[in-house]
Amino acid sequence: MIVVMKKGASAEVVQDMVRRVEGMGLKAHVIQGTERTVIAAVGEKRNGERETLESYEDVEKVVPILAPYKIASREVKPDPTVVEIGSFKAGLGHIGVIAGPCSVESEDQIMSVAADVKKAGATALRGGAFKPRTSPYSFQGLKEEGLQLLAAAREATGLAVVTEVMTPGQVELVANYADVLQVGARNMQNYNLLQAVGETLKPVLLKRGPSATMEEFLLAAEYILDQGNKHVMLCERGVRTFETHTRFTLPLASVPYLQEKTHLPVIVDPSHGTGKASLVPPMCTAAVAAGCDGLMIEVHPNPHQAVSDGAQSLTPEAFQHTMQQCRKVAEVLGYTM
Amino acid sequence: MIVVMKKGASAEVVQDMVRRVEGMGLKAHVIQGTERTVIAAVGEKRNGERETLESYEDVEKVVPILAPYKIASREVKPDPTVVEIGSFKAGLGHIGVIAGPCSVESEDQIMSVAADVKKAGATALRGGAFKPRTSPYSFQGLKEEGLQLLAAAREATGLAVVTEVMTPGQVELVANYADVLQVGARNMQNYNLLQAVGETLKPVLLKRGPSATMEEFLLAAEYILDQGNKHVMLCERGVRTFETHTRFTLPLASVPYLQEKTHLPVIVDPSHGTGKASLVPPMCTAAVAAGCDGLMIEVHPNPHQAVSDGAQSLTPEAFQHTMQQCRKVAEVLGYTM
Amino acid sequence: MIVVMKKGASAEVVQDMVRRVEGMGLKAHVIQGTERTVIAAVGEKRNGERETLESYEDVEKVVPILAPYKIASREVKPDPTVVEIGSFKAGLGHIGVIAGPCSVESEDQIMSVAADVKKAGATALRGGAFKPRTSPYSFQGLKEEGLQLLAAAREATGLAVVTEVMTPGQVELVANYADVLQVGARNMQNYNLLQAVGETLKPVLLKRGPSATMEEFLLAAEYILDQGNKHVMLCERGVRTFETHTRFTLPLASVPYLQEKTHLPVIVDPSHGTGKASLVPPMCTAAVAAGCDGLMIEVHPNPHQAVSDGAQSLTPEAFQHTMQQCRKVAEVLGYTM
Amino acid sequence: MIVVMKKGASAEVVQDMVRRVEGMGLKAHVIQGTERTVIAAVGEKRNGERETLESYEDVEKVVPILAPYKIASREVKPDPTVVEIGSFKAGLGHIGVIAGPCSVESEDQIMSVAADVKKAGATALRGGAFKPRTSPYSFQGLKEEGLQLLAAAREATGLAVVTEVMTPGQVELVANYADVLQVGARNMQNYNLLQAVGETLKPVLLKRGPSATMEEFLLAAEYILDQGNKHVMLCERGVRTFETHTRFTLPLASVPYLQEKTHLPVIVDPSHGTGKASLVPPMCTAAVAAGCDGLMIEVHPNPHQAVSDGAQSLTPEAFQHTMQQCRKVAEVLGYTM
Repeated sequence: MIVVMKKGASAEVVQDMVRRVEGMGLKAHVIQGTERTVIAAVGEKRNGERETLESYEDVEKVVPILAPYKIASREVKPDPTVVEIGSFKAGLGHIGVIAGPCSVESEDQIMSVAADVKKAGATALRGGAFKPRTSPYSFQGLKEEGLQLLAAAREATGLAVVTEVMTPGQVELVANYADVLQVGARNMQNYNLLQAVGETLKPVLLKRGPSATMEEFLLAAEYILDQGNKHVMLCERGVRTFETHTRFTLPLASVPYLQEKTHLPVIVDPSHGTGKASLVPPMCTAAVAAGCDGLMIEVHPNPHQAVSDGAQSLTPEAFQHTMQQCRKVAEVLGYTM
Repeated sequence: MIVVMKKGASAEVVQDMVRRVEGMGLKAHVIQGTERTVIAAVGEKRNGERETLESYEDVEKVVPILAPYKIASREVKPDPTVVEIGSFKAGLGHIGVIAGPCSVESEDQIMSVAADVKKAGATALRGGAFKPRTSPYSFQGLKEEGLQLLAAAREATGLAVVTEVMTPGQVELVANYADVLQVGARNMQNYNLLQAVGETLKPVLLKRGPSATMEEFLLAAEYILDQGNKHVMLCERGVRTFETHTRFTLPLASVPYLQEKTHLPVIVDPSHGTGKASLVPPMCTAAVAAGCDGLMIEVHPNPHQAVSDGAQSLTPEAFQHTMQQCRKVAEVLGYTM
Repeated sequence: MIVVMKKGASAEVVQDMVRRVEGMGLKAHVIQGTERTVIAAVGEKRNGERETLESYEDVEKVVPILAPYKIASREVKPDPTVVEIGSFKAGLGHIGVIAGPCSVESEDQIMSVAADVKKAGATALRGGAFKPRTSPYSFQGLKEEGLQLLAAAREATGLAVVTEVMTPGQVELVANYADVLQVGARNMQNYNLLQAVGETLKPVLLKRGPSATMEEFLLAAEYILDQGNKHVMLCERGVRTFETHTRFTLPLASVPYLQEKTHLPVIVDPSHGTGKASLVPPMCTAAVAAGCDGLMIEVHPNPHQAVSDGAQSLTPEAFQHTMQQCRKVAEVLGYTM
Repeated sequence: MIVVMKKGASAEVVQDMVRRVEGMGLKAHVIQGTERTVIAAVGEKRNGERETLESYEDVEKVVPILAPYKIASREVKPDPTVVEIGSFKAGLGHIGVIAGPCSVESEDQIMSVAADVKKAGATALRGGAFKPRTSPYSFQGLKEEGLQLLAAAREATGLAVVTEVMTPGQVELVANYADVLQVGARNMQNYNLLQAVGETLKPVLLKRGPSATMEEFLLAAEYILDQGNKHVMLCERGVRTFETHTRFTLPLASVPYLQEKTHLPVIVDPSHGTGKASLVPPMCTAAVAAGCDGLMIEVHPNPHQAVSDGAQSLTPEAFQHTMQQCRKVAEVLGYTM
């Protein structure tokens, strides 16, 4: 941690600060610059020293040196984490493909789309049974019935089931049916939920909050990992910016960036990331070319009849074509898909 | 709802879309423009018609005419809602002042700060017992003990108690001690929590999520109101932007904007909105001058020893001076504080 | 244009507005909704009617139906524009590659890098002679001497020369040496400059401003096109968001989005878009997979000695490898590179 | 400057970096942390050392300690700069008020509005003669005729004239008529223009670019100051964020923040900052309460007939009332207006 003193801080003021730094159990090195004095505080424990030091008036700013996350960090675990469930595999050059409707709507719908995405090459099935909706007047999901339908679709196709859990009280129920517990973007900093899914030891798909920084995203993963659950997949699904021509802005550079910083697999969701079906296929091939460890794609047998997210859902035909293009790109770049 | 067709949409395509609009129970008016055809769909029920219509390829875009929220809307209830708890009053020209530490840390701390803020003119006490923290390694709150200390401080000072609840399972416990249930910014779209606090009928302070639009913010309030709880206060606490010199960017224009759109009181939190103690006092007077219905301010007897948010906490002395300035502004503008 | 009246607008108020709409030479259709009245105004001329109508108190909002740009629009010219200069070709499945240093620094530097990028497959050379720098204390470019060196490098390699022009007064000079006039991101809305480059009829590379919307970007192109210059290339180079781990946020979905809306070629600059050399290669392959019409990449013989942008420059070796990967992706997707 | 080495950097690698730092004429202090090594480089000259050091692969990041601007900095000149032109005075507790139409449209319009704003208490007149417009199809200003009308209005009222200059070639002409040269938000990083207005020694009003950081804003001012022109006023006019209910997001905390960092007066423009006439008055009083050194407000005798920005213009009556409220707030807080 580097404590930058305000200009003109007197020798006593600096000495006081050194004592405070040492009082935290850190070693203090004073460096006298030409315009300012800085104190390098060695031994940072990542537990609030920064905020405390920043509260002093004579301190201009405090610059942390260490990343605030540990278990999620590639420095701590250099080997990539691979999440594998049946034929689904994400990490180390394997690209897992999670496809399916936004919401589970009926037996017909989910069985038909499961068969379609399986045929096209998906290895996991997505579908919401508990749906977080911006408006209280929108469809809120089939709940347990939806979970049962997902399990039936798994039975029929062998696809791993990925579905969202919204509150700690639902974790047990959802974990009974799902292979992967999804934590939605709106809940990325719902810490009680993160701890609850962390306790299950089921693989977790953690979606990035629309205004989460990389540090906040990795710290949310850290909450889960800290409970002993090692199977966390990070999902980039777009961030909120001034752009309005897409639903969110999909920053694909977060794929290689995260892969430098963490060992966890990085999945990309171009459906939410763009919000427009016509933009999804090129963003799928782009995500593969960026080196992602997986894709999450909304597919609906009839997007016009979808109860949610119809505008961003691919038809089974469009999905099949997208998969073909993605596989071509994966192949020439040496990835398995 | 206005359905804008793509350029060159044929008469049949338009007719098909008219049939779909009518199939939703809406009345369709076709308007032939010089370059495009649009269909005005009258009778919008705010339940997903827009998304469905946008999923058609021949549709350029769908423009909603009605706001998606209803109960929160000033059109539905033109009279301002006033939230009143003992001497705390927010709305209709009354400015409620909620002050206190980020976290409840000890009996001494909370009793001392409660006495100080009461003396300076606050009408409610804030203090976190359950703390949502970005890092799992940060202090997570005193939990029930913190609630008990808050209740003791209320006993001693008469201040209303405002404290955060993080998950539906905590609502009953927190409601036993608190006068106002706070839903934090990270949980603004935690719909299970919104419904749970909505069921209690206790006043709720709903903080704006750092990337929530005004519509999303009002729809989150709608989730609470929809459960029959009429006492919702909206709290602007800053949004996430590219700016880094402040913790968040505090957009005070949301005060008059929200007051045009909703009858609910609008509280401003300049502590989180700026993240820097030196910027808090001018943002407090500015919020009052912008017409806010309340302020929420972090005050700590010794900011350097705060376990959280020390850098943005005012000392009791600074708070007292800030209150004096705010009262001057309130008075000349005709507000009660 | 759809004029949405405020709730409760009386019949007279609506009639007044109809008269105003008609006074603008537009046809007015009144649609009586269940909650609001809207007036569809047909015949929009894109010259300020919207702002005028929005200034009335009884108007809730005005929704434009037509895009504000015309010549840039694919509706007006469905065929893609191809920009071709010698072996450089961008558009219609051809991917032009512009590579070179941020700044021209010396004859040795530019000749060496030109030879290197040519060998690796670039078809144009970039290099700044006039440099817009955030700080007045940074290197501001070699100016005319830099232009002469670029021309010498073209002589030696046959690469087309792309270089920035910063002010109308420089246009003639720069046009004497360059094949493509670059308008930088900071000047995207420098309208005098846009008109001046529009008058030259030289191809223009227009970089997106870091907070420009798609409409503003296309309107900036429209300023150039409106002068009769048909050879405009759009360059996505990242936008400013709350993300700080990259220099800018590179939204690749703007590639297919722009290609839907405009006939102009879309170039991607992953060097500025990320600001980090390690992230540039995956963003290059991703841009190709997203269907871009060209790449613009910073390459420096020795990034550690670059006078500007060293941290985001590729070495010639890294560039060569990146080109190989890009060509593989281009080939399987059917593009020429 | 603090150079943070990557984890596991060997002693040789660190030694190499020390040599490079010393090769730049800086003093290097090596600090061995528990997890990382950092090198404090003392003697920073603010001319690109940071970028160079960041280009090394073994470097995790480089943290600058000094602000990149100098002449604009309050550390260099602790006394506030006061800009005074006739009765207009901004700085040191004096609030200058610049009011008038977006564009000069006619003699009648500008003479009438000048008289009105003068009567209400404005001390300077704004009005665009050269107009930067997003669309090439919008009104582009009366040009020199507009300047002549502004000068006539000054003659009649004694108000100082503030008007925009768009390109270096116009500076001489505009300076002949104007008292204050305005550099618009779109031109904040048009460095040739900044240098040209810097050479005139006329007071300059520099508007913040909609995505400019505070550092970029102050560095833009530095370009002007560096030419010897000491009379620069900074104008906060809102930034671009995800918010769409206002035209821009107006971050009033930049007022006290800038006043901590720089001696230059800070003006607030709530008209562009909100884009809606109804939000302008509360944002004016809020800006005064935040401690601003001036206001810039669009006023039009008939907003519905304004050729530009009608929706955000106040009527003369609304302006007069706003001024009364602002003066009340200024008075109780001890400012002169």
